[in-house]
Amino acid sequence: MNRYWRLDRHPQGTDFAAALTLAEEPLRRPGDGEVLIRNHYLSLDAGTRLWMTSRTDGYQPPLPLGSPMKGLVLGEVVASRSPGVNPGDLVRAFGQWADHSLLRPEESVLRVLDRSVSDPRQHLGVLGPNALTAYVGLTETAATLPGETVLVSAAAGATGTLAAQIARNMGCRVIGLAGGAAKCRFLLEDLQLAAAVDYKAEDVAARLATLGPIHVYFDNVGGPLLDSVLPNMALAGRVAICGLIATYGAETPTPGPMHFDQVLMKRLTIKGFFAPDFWHRGDEVISRMRAWLDAGQIRMRFDVSHGLDAAPVAYGKLFSGANIGKVLVDLRNG
Amino acid sequence: MNRYWRLDRHPQGTDFAAALTLAEEPLRRPGDGEVLIRNHYLSLDAGTRLWMTSRTDGYQPPLPLGSPMKGLVLGEVVASRSPGVNPGDLVRAFGQWADHSLLRPEESVLRVLDRSVSDPRQHLGVLGPNALTAYVGLTETAATLPGETVLVSAAAGATGTLAAQIARNMGCRVIGLAGGAAKCRFLLEDLQLAAAVDYKAEDVAARLATLGPIHVYFDNVGGPLLDSVLPNMALAGRVAICGLIATYGAETPTPGPMHFDQVLMKRLTIKGFFAPDFWHRGDEVISRMRAWLDAGQIRMRFDVSHGLDAAPVAYGKLFSGANIGKVLVDLRNG
Repeated sequence: MNRYWRLDRHPQGTDFAAALTLAEEPLRRPGDGEVLIRNHYLSLDAGTRLWMTSRTDGYQPPLPLGSPMKGLVLGEVVASRSPGVNPGDLVRAFGQWADHSLLRPEESVLRVLDRSVSDPRQHLGVLGPNALTAYVGLTETAATLPGETVLVSAAAGATGTLAAQIARNMGCRVIGLAGGAAKCRFLLEDLQLAAAVDYKAEDVAARLATLGPIHVYFDNVGGPLLDSVLPNMALAGRVAICGLIATYGAETPTPGPMHFDQVLMKRLTIKGFFAPDFWHRGDEVISRMRAWLDAGQIRMRFDVSHGLDAAPVAYGKLFSGANIGKVLVDLRNG
Repeated sequence: MNRYWRLDRHPQGTDFAAALTLAEEPLRRPGDGEVLIRNHYLSLDAGTRLWMTSRTDGYQPPLPLGSPMKGLVLGEVVASRSPGVNPGDLVRAFGQWADHSLLRPEESVLRVLDRSVSDPRQHLGVLGPNALTAYVGLTETAATLPGETVLVSAAAGATGTLAAQIARNMGCRVIGLAGGAAKCRFLLEDLQLAAAVDYKAEDVAARLATLGPIHVYFDNVGGPLLDSVLPNMALAGRVAICGLIATYGAETPTPGPMHFDQVLMKRLTIKGFFAPDFWHRGDEVISRMRAWLDAGQIRMRFDVSHGLDAAPVAYGKLFSGANIGKVLVDLRNG
């Protein structure tokens, strides 16, 4: 039998427990072209929240109700009828929130992983898709230059952590936005950022006015924080929209920033990007990250929950901001 | 004596008559470095509306109350104490809404004009700053390519008319947005656009859904129209924010587009630009426009009022949408 989380309802806000049901079905053997993976870790990512809504104007179609919840997994191949993927391979792919994932490699961005990485969780961390997101967002979308002031929102989250460190390694002055003293301490002490702004305790716009102007805003959040940032952007500044976590739960559109006119007044560029558009740059980016990782110049903190049962609660952390670093569910003893 | 319009109050909405006073003062001779111009035409431009507010987050500081209203003028030099500018020269510069403008060339983008242009008004039209705005917005800000679908708002206005024709001349499929049947007829018949959408009579979002996807939106307006456009943009589409006329009158910030999240979902680029950043490209752009003008491949309709008295009412046309083409005040017999 294979246990899996089934999406039965569109969640209201962050009530994922009411939307998901832990179900089970017989474990099917892979058909032609399919691979069966025993999931070791689930990677929980805020962007997948969009799949849970009924909105059809997202970047991917919503999951039909009654389907297994999808997400990125790290695991070991149990059986394969796909050439180039062999039993025993450590792989990463878009699978299911389940004990096992059955998938087609070409539909799920399957990647056979390097066993020489001492902590395999890094394949979902410093060497994972969040790193590609952070790297292309900074270098390509925002065209960040050394010496610029870079602001990162959700800076203690998985992608934010990486964007902040990559910008720091590029020679930028990096300011992190996060909620709470513990996260801000993490940004200053662990990540060695130039400044940290606690949006729960500070007047963000006023504080940024003392720290800016901001050349690049790497935004994971949208919403009111974006509004506090726009008046503090530098002339010809760039806003890379990586995520809009503030609005993912909405079933209907929400208003854009009140200070939208600063786009004109300051000749800003606001640009959305989507990491899957850049999968072809994965090897290049991962090799760069690997060099930094091996040199101790980039790190990831993991927020690990244990057992498949824990997935909906762990997922909720992404939206309540309870986590520092990458949220994983460890299924190895589940 | 020199008559001039003085900004005495911040206008409420479009009540320019209550905000401006026709005053007069003795005509002063130019001091060292100054030029005195007899104004032949005033160019009325929506962007100058921002100078009339108290807002300090615009792209230029507001005019102090009690100052002469500023604007672009076309006229003849009466006296000059600035090298390179001589009495009798036909010039264009940022002067005053007045019979005469006294200014310093280096502070007012003064340009000595080519007398060989048969209709000198074209120095405020096809060969004027609106053409530079249209050209750099399309080619540089939006990186428009031949064959793309380009949507232009306020397409019957001065800048919109030029943007639409330049895009058409570049080999794009051009859709114009304008209010009213007369303007839409002008777009189809005079400018030969592929389609015209009447925002006063049609459901813009629904109509654009049949005409799109839109690769480039050249936006002069902002506000609700931008909101109708965003869901109809193509993947990786570009929105060049040339103007936000819908919000210029506001003394406080107004909400941004409800469909702002499409920036992420469609990986859009929204980019503001400001023609004065591109003055250095003026010669290049004007020579291109001159070739099209002489070949009959670009045109401008003028909406001309007569006499300095008429300026505030003529200015109001820009905000009520009463004009087709470039709004000028002819002062030659005033």
